[in-house]
Amino acid sequence: MEQDIEGKILFDDGDHKFVWIGAEEHYSKGVVQTMQFLIIDKNKGWLLDPGGVHLFSKVVSGVSRYISLDRIEGIIFSHQDPDVSSGIALWLGITKAKVYISSLWTRFLPHFGIVDLSRVTGIEDFKDRALPLPSGARLRFVPTHFMHSPGAWSVFDERSKILFSGDVGAAIFPEGEERLFIEDFSAALPYVEGFHKRYIASNSVARRWVEMVRRLDPTMIAPQHGGVYKGAAVGAFLSWLSSLRCGVDLLDEIYGA
Amino acid sequence: MEQDIEGKILFDDGDHKFVWIGAEEHYSKGVVQTMQFLIIDKNKGWLLDPGGVHLFSKVVSGVSRYISLDRIEGIIFSHQDPDVSSGIALWLGITKAKVYISSLWTRFLPHFGIVDLSRVTGIEDFKDRALPLPSGARLRFVPTHFMHSPGAWSVFDERSKILFSGDVGAAIFPEGEERLFIEDFSAALPYVEGFHKRYIASNSVARRWVEMVRRLDPTMIAPQHGGVYKGAAVGAFLSWLSSLRCGVDLLDEIYGA
Repeated sequence: MEQDIEGKILFDDGDHKFVWIGAEEHYSKGVVQTMQFLIIDKNKGWLLDPGGVHLFSKVVSGVSRYISLDRIEGIIFSHQDPDVSSGIALWLGITKAKVYISSLWTRFLPHFGIVDLSRVTGIEDFKDRALPLPSGARLRFVPTHFMHSPGAWSVFDERSKILFSGDVGAAIFPEGEERLFIEDFSAALPYVEGFHKRYIASNSVARRWVEMVRRLDPTMIAPQHGGVYKGAAVGAFLSWLSSLRCGVDLLDEIYGA
Repeated sequence: MEQDIEGKILFDDGDHKFVWIGAEEHYSKGVVQTMQFLIIDKNKGWLLDPGGVHLFSKVVSGVSRYISLDRIEGIIFSHQDPDVSSGIALWLGITKAKVYISSLWTRFLPHFGIVDLSRVTGIEDFKDRALPLPSGARLRFVPTHFMHSPGAWSVFDERSKILFSGDVGAAIFPEGEERLFIEDFSAALPYVEGFHKRYIASNSVARRWVEMVRRLDPTMIAPQHGGVYKGAAVGAFLSWLSSLRCGVDLLDEIYGA
């Protein structure tokens, strides 16, 4: 994905954009790779899982290619992991953004450093489970609990029909095999399978999530690690996930390991 | 627990101590309360879940009442949450300690900041699942996966017979109701129940964990939040947990919320 290293606009209808903000040119060895996304609506920005302390300056510079930092209105964290949200104190310092995360984690965020809780809203507190944007578009929150975090949310951008899925769909590509898009699911499966079997809590929850997502009919699924599913890979991934035995289904294997 | 605010030695046989390092006098409103423990063996120290950036200086001063920082040999993180492990870069900076955490999270830790991975060992890499201490005592790692984190470990100190259980057994006491010991489980239950129902992945895994723990026959169970179970409360808590319906057992309730 050499040519796309500086980011790629995945959807743009004039008023509303869905942007992948670009990769690090060289990943640090042994550190899990992450992807950051930005939604721009009427020239205001919402960041999805902008990441930890480790990548802060790289993500700031990636975002700044698309929008000025003072126009960032919101930051949505899919869950509480270090690679997702540990940069929160830094992000609150350089933007005026509000933060959205599962209510299960709002009380944990201050442990990352100085965090003003008046700027943090639990996603469970949105009565209609959607964040309205200036253009009239909406970001719909999709429950993703126990995949893996007990309090996790995906974000469905109703305008672009792109689903930001957090850890769900994560792939860990070997060096040199990184790609922005996954179009052939069977080729990506070896890099997708291990994570899902070990981190997702059970087939029952995976199946429940797939049913909800199928009703939304996304054009792309954009996870926080790996590649963006598009075309036939979307349905192929969902079919595979819906029949996966994982987590507590494999207790003997996992507890015996 | 006014009189114990500066910490309490829970076990001491001369060679080997298990220490609760003390509470904050005033918890910050809206921030989840945490407890930190220290094992001292032949005058070397091992820290259990020393916590996030938020509490770093308080924990440093608490630990220093019992041992000098240059004698800290190891830091064990039960899992990857911010309140457990986000202070890792700071701790690596002021001690020469090695860090132990589930292999599921070693690649995530650098996202907390500059972390030298050569000082981090995955607990799954210990062949016999135990860390030997200078006196001959051992810290045995007990799998606690999906309670809540997919990669979590409890630590059983074979000498003191105290089990450090990470998030398992966590209580969230209302202000003024904090106590160091839980001796009457039924009185503590209202502060224990909500967390376990919502964060632990399933009854199947809770039951499995209880079976393992009963075989160890701990004298106390020390979680990262709330109070230390002792006396009759140990068995009462284990019985309750073993029959709890939680997590994916309650999918309709949780996904409908």
